[in-house]
Amino acid sequence: MIMTETSSFKHNYKMTIAYDGTRYGGWQIQPNAITIQQLLMNAIKTITRNDLSVTGSGRTDAGVHALAQTANFKSTAPLDLYRFHASMNGLLPTDIRVLSLEEVPLDFHSRYSAVSKSYHYHLCLDRIQLPFERLYSWHIRQNIDKERLREAANRFIGVHDFTSFANEASMGSAAKDPVRNLFRLDVVDTDKGVRLEFEANGFLYKMVRNIVGTLHEVSLGKYSPDDINAMFHTRDRRMAGTAAPAHGLFLANVTY
Amino acid sequence: MIMTETSSFKHNYKMTIAYDGTRYGGWQIQPNAITIQQLLMNAIKTITRNDLSVTGSGRTDAGVHALAQTANFKSTAPLDLYRFHASMNGLLPTDIRVLSLEEVPLDFHSRYSAVSKSYHYHLCLDRIQLPFERLYSWHIRQNIDKERLREAANRFIGVHDFTSFANEASMGSAAKDPVRNLFRLDVVDTDKGVRLEFEANGFLYKMVRNIVGTLHEVSLGKYSPDDINAMFHTRDRRMAGTAAPAHGLFLANVTY
Repeated sequence: MIMTETSSFKHNYKMTIAYDGTRYGGWQIQPNAITIQQLLMNAIKTITRNDLSVTGSGRTDAGVHALAQTANFKSTAPLDLYRFHASMNGLLPTDIRVLSLEEVPLDFHSRYSAVSKSYHYHLCLDRIQLPFERLYSWHIRQNIDKERLREAANRFIGVHDFTSFANEASMGSAAKDPVRNLFRLDVVDTDKGVRLEFEANGFLYKMVRNIVGTLHEVSLGKYSPDDINAMFHTRDRRMAGTAAPAHGLFLANVTY
Repeated sequence: MIMTETSSFKHNYKMTIAYDGTRYGGWQIQPNAITIQQLLMNAIKTITRNDLSVTGSGRTDAGVHALAQTANFKSTAPLDLYRFHASMNGLLPTDIRVLSLEEVPLDFHSRYSAVSKSYHYHLCLDRIQLPFERLYSWHIRQNIDKERLREAANRFIGVHDFTSFANEASMGSAAKDPVRNLFRLDVVDTDKGVRLEFEANGFLYKMVRNIVGTLHEVSLGKYSPDDINAMFHTRDRRMAGTAAPAHGLFLANVTY
């Protein structure tokens, strides 16, 4: 006989969180590193005196930033939203901010309820990268061909098996289905270079950084845009470009 | 008999430098702190094998940033500008960048030849300060009266004895003449708050931060704009507002 799991949780809260990933071992709790999930749970415990589990929309790796990560946690007792929000930001270090907090239906799940996610990747194309940009954009010293970059970016849009652009996750939970729908990959000019804006129904592990690394190599002439089609076909990670560094990447938005 | 000092230096080089002051004990060489001047001199010594003295346009305090500090140093031998510039940025940490390098006449002096300097001070007026702004703007949580801020800012413009808005320098060399001409104090709206832009023929020690702190207190209603005239009259530092924190301040430009 299968027992239906019953839960005493009566409230579910969704947080939107910004963070500077520079100092952290990434989103997900792990031994021997300070993580954003851990610090959020510590702060919640200090306020509620309960060990409440925080579920993120997905992991971000060490050094990756978030403009608007989302996470939810469940509670038996109701929270005073205004006071709880202020207390969280009082307890958290200033490189992690809870931007908003709201009560959501009990069946809301930060990961499973998401319909799309957006990531931004910043490339600095100036000859000299300003000190204030160094933690937030990848400095490309070579001259890159922006038209080639745009053409290559378009090859990624649509429904594809992204196996060649995904790494195996180190801590299990590898996606069984490597097919994703990349709705959008915009190459937006900025005053320092370009911002690559990705939006998809989901992303595989390291998928954005592997695509950015590949786009970089195409824009330098190592590969042609047509090579990308071949890379998709091989379903072999080793055929695509080297991953771009973590610090240029921002989790920008999660849509529900 | 007074001997005329003769120098073997035949070349004088001017550098424009950007830095993130977060990690440093300020511009000027001092014991027990890593300073920008020290790291520049170390890099120059590694390249030229000579202990060449670097003169800045002025000090910046611990935590203060620079978009374009200027400094000069003299050398007996000529430098290959392109290679020297690239080597400097290769040797320096990425939070200090030499933006440009040029040869200037032997009588050029970074401090004495300057005709004006500009500083920017960033106020973040959002309810929540994004993590990416935390090291580069002062977060004001209270509601401030921007019209009052603008009115108060105008009182500082012009030729004044700024004694009430200057601290005594800890390491001697206090300015004998406390009169400065503040050409401009613009309150520029930004997407996060305001940027206060100062331009003057020179600045006394902590003058910008003391003025910003006073403007803050006026905009909260603690002082009226008219009180600023009285503060100037007393020539007493204790009559003006508390200094604003270092991390919102940028040395923006030095004009020759």
